[in-house]
Amino acid sequence: MKLIHFSVASMFIATASWAADPLPSWNEGAAKQSIVAFVERVSNEGTSDFVPPAARIATFDNDGTLWAEQPMYFQLLFALDQVKLLAPQHPEWKDQEPFASLLRGDVKGALAGGERALLEIMMATHAGMTTEEFEKSVKDWVATARHPVTKRPITQMVYQPMLELLAYLRANGFKTFIVSGGGVEFMRPWAEGIYGIPPEQVIGSSGKLKFELRSGLPVLLKLPELNFVDDKDGKPVGIQQQVGRRPIAAFGNSDGDLQMLQWTAAGSGPRFCLYVRHDDAAREWAYDRDSSIGRLDKGLDEARAKGWTVVSMEGDWKVIYPAGK
Amino acid sequence: MKLIHFSVASMFIATASWAADPLPSWNEGAAKQSIVAFVERVSNEGTSDFVPPAARIATFDNDGTLWAEQPMYFQLLFALDQVKLLAPQHPEWKDQEPFASLLRGDVKGALAGGERALLEIMMATHAGMTTEEFEKSVKDWVATARHPVTKRPITQMVYQPMLELLAYLRANGFKTFIVSGGGVEFMRPWAEGIYGIPPEQVIGSSGKLKFELRSGLPVLLKLPELNFVDDKDGKPVGIQQQVGRRPIAAFGNSDGDLQMLQWTAAGSGPRFCLYVRHDDAAREWAYDRDSSIGRLDKGLDEARAKGWTVVSMEGDWKVIYPAGK
Repeated sequence: MKLIHFSVASMFIATASWAADPLPSWNEGAAKQSIVAFVERVSNEGTSDFVPPAARIATFDNDGTLWAEQPMYFQLLFALDQVKLLAPQHPEWKDQEPFASLLRGDVKGALAGGERALLEIMMATHAGMTTEEFEKSVKDWVATARHPVTKRPITQMVYQPMLELLAYLRANGFKTFIVSGGGVEFMRPWAEGIYGIPPEQVIGSSGKLKFELRSGLPVLLKLPELNFVDDKDGKPVGIQQQVGRRPIAAFGNSDGDLQMLQWTAAGSGPRFCLYVRHDDAAREWAYDRDSSIGRLDKGLDEARAKGWTVVSMEGDWKVIYPAGK
Repeated sequence: MKLIHFSVASMFIATASWAADPLPSWNEGAAKQSIVAFVERVSNEGTSDFVPPAARIATFDNDGTLWAEQPMYFQLLFALDQVKLLAPQHPEWKDQEPFASLLRGDVKGALAGGERALLEIMMATHAGMTTEEFEKSVKDWVATARHPVTKRPITQMVYQPMLELLAYLRANGFKTFIVSGGGVEFMRPWAEGIYGIPPEQVIGSSGKLKFELRSGLPVLLKLPELNFVDDKDGKPVGIQQQVGRRPIAAFGNSDGDLQMLQWTAAGSGPRFCLYVRHDDAAREWAYDRDSSIGRLDKGLDEARAKGWTVVSMEGDWKVIYPAGK
């Protein structure tokens, strides 16, 4: 009986709270209205637009959609910190680029090596250990890392309005997934605590894994070999591989999310596609068509042509980050 | 309020039914006792063995564990039927092995070509179409296919005791996954209806997919190229890629499941590993160490050495298949 009481009570609380305002950090306006209208439309039993809860799949990009991505992807911040942490075990790095520059504190110099430098940094910090060792290193980093510009804890660089949106969708029977170009093993250790999204609902890029018995104990080794790139064309593929059904709602902020939104929009029945637009230089960052990180160009044109929701961070969001800290 | 009433009502019904006997098709004995004891152990809040529901991940092999796999994998039955269905579009098959033999009704002759013949049959029937076209062909087949020996509908070749086990675990907060060497796109169209397992909780082997715009409409093409083999070493890898956490319970029937069981057993806290043993020649089939399908040899030795549960289909199961039909 305890369980039942609890369930009923939490349903009442949820109902009451949503009735007040499901999205308190969103300004009244077209963007907020379009979200609420869509959720009500698919929840309206007995109508032709009703979508059974099991099919209410919503997919979210992460970098730039759920948390910030400037001045560089946070996974790269992690990788740079890991190089410093691992340096004592790699004396050879002192004379070897891009590590030598990094260890002198010259990030710009290290990254001047372009994709090759980046790949070397990623392989050195994301492969050659077991999945459990890597998970621990991510957890340790996330527990203390701060953002280089705002100095906020990295876990507080998430967008408060998007946290509310995730919770609102789940309260209405949606299953929320992350579909990110970021590393899946990098996101899973903290996605549940921060977004309420369990590991099995996180889709991302990955390296190959190898099962191995070490003195009889099985481990999964992270190999320095790419397995899957969950970006652009890869997003609908990743969704099909891991979810196995088409989302009815998709949320992104860049051209890298366009194929996910196209795939979502092209299904039958009610569909919802939303772009977050970074147009708030005062409270966050302002960038779109010319940015090397999170470029939004073709996606913006297609959103306008197709009538997708485009969120202005400046105009639609009362706050950017959670209060406090 | 309608929703709440319904939830409370169904909880009472569920409770009453489990209280009576959660596994009515299982004979009283060590196997059944070990299952119930494990579920009660991890559900006992306040003890050190308690496992929070979110971490109650249970993974099941499919062929030979949830449904039968003799005289050949059912996915192969599907592929053979598809060859006949697709033959009018492929006049060249009349003179081309393995198709020519198949179309003459000579399955044995067709499969005499070994792995190469098998691969050609699989590629011809599982690639070159969109994911939606393939899904439809699987649904059409499953709706009418009958087993070549028992003549039962293919969907009734599932094991009734395992259906009860799946439901019992879910009623106790477990999330149940399929982890099969079979094709993920072949299992997803019917796994929800038959096992209550949604597409996103099905892990299997897969071919590569390609995102494409066809006159502006996005599709996912199934390419004739292997993406992932979810068997043996591949099972823990597939679990890590898709679930991202280690199961606490795993169920299989062959050496192809051994690494999944090893990976599951090696985690910390309470663990449960179970092998279904096909020893019932009268009601199902009897095969183990020498079988080419579902060989259980090393796994049986390890199960005995480690004290895993070994289910005798003959001794532990009151019935094999669901009643009727």
